Amino acid sequence: MHEKLEKMIVGVDLGGSKINSILSDSSGNIEARDLRDTLAHEGPDAVIKRIIDSIKQVASGRDIAGIGIGAAGACDVATGVITLSPNLPGWHDIPLKDNIQREFNLPVHLENDATAAALGEHCFGGAVGIDNLIYICVGTGIGGGILIGGQLYHGASGSAGEIGHMTIDINGPRCPCGNSGCWETLASGTALAREAVKRIEAGAQTTILNFADGQLQKVSAHRVYLAAREGDRLANELISQTAHYLGVGLVNIVNIFNPQLILIGGGLSRMGQLLLEPATKMVRERAYELAVRAVRIELSPLGNDSTALGAVALVLKSS
Amino acid sequence: MHEKLEKMIVGVDLGGSKINSILSDSSGNIEARDLRDTLAHEGPDAVIKRIIDSIKQVASGRDIAGIGIGAAGACDVATGVITLSPNLPGWHDIPLKDNIQREFNLPVHLENDATAAALGEHCFGGAVGIDNLIYICVGTGIGGGILIGGQLYHGASGSAGEIGHMTIDINGPRCPCGNSGCWETLASGTALAREAVKRIEAGAQTTILNFADGQLQKVSAHRVYLAAREGDRLANELISQTAHYLGVGLVNIVNIFNPQLILIGGGLSRMGQLLLEPATKMVRERAYELAVRAVRIELSPLGNDSTALGAVALVLKSS
Repeated sequence: MHEKLEKMIVGVDLGGSKINSILSDSSGNIEARDLRDTLAHEGPDAVIKRIIDSIKQVASGRDIAGIGIGAAGACDVATGVITLSPNLPGWHDIPLKDNIQREFNLPVHLENDATAAALGEHCFGGAVGIDNLIYICVGTGIGGGILIGGQLYHGASGSAGEIGHMTIDINGPRCPCGNSGCWETLASGTALAREAVKRIEAGAQTTILNFADGQLQKVSAHRVYLAAREGDRLANELISQTAHYLGVGLVNIVNIFNPQLILIGGGLSRMGQLLLEPATKMVRERAYELAVRAVRIELSPLGNDSTALGAVALVLKSS
Repeated sequence: MHEKLEKMIVGVDLGGSKINSILSDSSGNIEARDLRDTLAHEGPDAVIKRIIDSIKQVASGRDIAGIGIGAAGACDVATGVITLSPNLPGWHDIPLKDNIQREFNLPVHLENDATAAALGEHCFGGAVGIDNLIYICVGTGIGGGILIGGQLYHGASGSAGEIGHMTIDINGPRCPCGNSGCWETLASGTALAREAVKRIEAGAQTTILNFADGQLQKVSAHRVYLAAREGDRLANELISQTAHYLGVGLVNIVNIFNPQLILIGGGLSRMGQLLLEPATKMVRERAYELAVRAVRIELSPLGNDSTALGAVALVLKSS
């Protein structure tokens, strides 16, 4: 690795709404960044071109050791193919690694975004020295990255960690995945915004719309949070409810995995303890005592960069 | 191991109701067996004495390489202590390994029963050559044994695999664990019997009581099954409902772990395809396609001996 220390690494977080590319050294120090919209509706070819532009932008003129990509979808890690992505329309068996490798003639590594984020936290963030980690991305949906025995866990066909599609309410809302009452239908940002809209439409007293330019379709989890911070009662109630559902799923994760550490990232994690405190309280009350004693539940310290830094770590691990 | 091949191994399954001890060679051939009631209500000292008697019974006069124990409870594998057991009253931090070692002056290995069963299936049963297995014991409760990368997964403090205490119905029945709508409150043998009693008390037309000596307190999952086999409509309806709940939890497990193989053991597995077929149908319909394609869901071929044979494998692995 010594020779590599002089070279830089590019890490890309390919999300449904943003492409976050970073230029990093081997210690995870970020020296440049390119953040742009994914514009996923334009389809794979346009997005791949945008990823290439973004990489060129951050890499400009530097000597690059390799490129890592964490993508919002199920990935075949061995072949570097995105097999399926609910957040990237039209991405079905897309050989992203080959496409990027052809352009740059550099080693390229592909990984699922939440799984990459777990690795990022393990190498550079809140899980250094932790062998047994569940990273949970709570945003539009809920994704999971699993690190067991210090190794990323992919499952038999690379789709392990779909913890957002764990039924916690058998009579709950239908999920596009075909299931009912999936965790992400109840505890994601999408769920929070949906409930807010429903309550506003039913005539609830609230200031939430003031934070959304008065438009129902602009109501988002973040805007509910802004209203809650200003003391809006409904907004606080809805966030409490989301925290309740988040807690139910966390209890399941703690009972199943008995992890050392759970790190919560994704957009909703920006609500901080307002969301986390009631959820962890439920874990302490309801999960198995032995498992509760062993686990810490914390906010992801790397935040929006956990996936991109995990992508950097993919390159380091294989060099 | 060559020298050990001549010696025999004792494997003990310490359950809440039965102690199943076997004498096995290193290929998992069972040469003797002792099955007796645990009589768990008599407390740890009496049960430990009973375990010792049972081991003496199967080992009688043979040269023994070691003793393995799979116990119904959370185990500290390193120290050989049963830290807690919902099915063995009074078992709290009981140093079972030391107790047995002192008696026989032989290597003793302790493991959770469902985890041991996963190892048993991996070494001698339905999961030979499988690196990525979830063993599910569906009986009085629901327990899980997790094999990842060919290794048993224990979690941070030995309590991983409490999959029966995964909430699948947030508004479901209260569970003694403190949670609501745990998988085992809906899909275990206990749940099936409870629902049958409830329906009989409400005046449902059924022959179930004919299989229970006419006594409500004798209604068990097995007796519901006997009635179902004879065409009893309510019994069949209740088993369908149990299979439905079993399927919901299996979908979760498939989405979370993306395993190669799920093996279903425990008392309820004796219902065979009547239970398994509708549950696996739900998995095919609702779990992630990539994960569904990768997984086989089957009945445990080792049946009642999976834990005892896993206990044998514990000894083999460490010799």
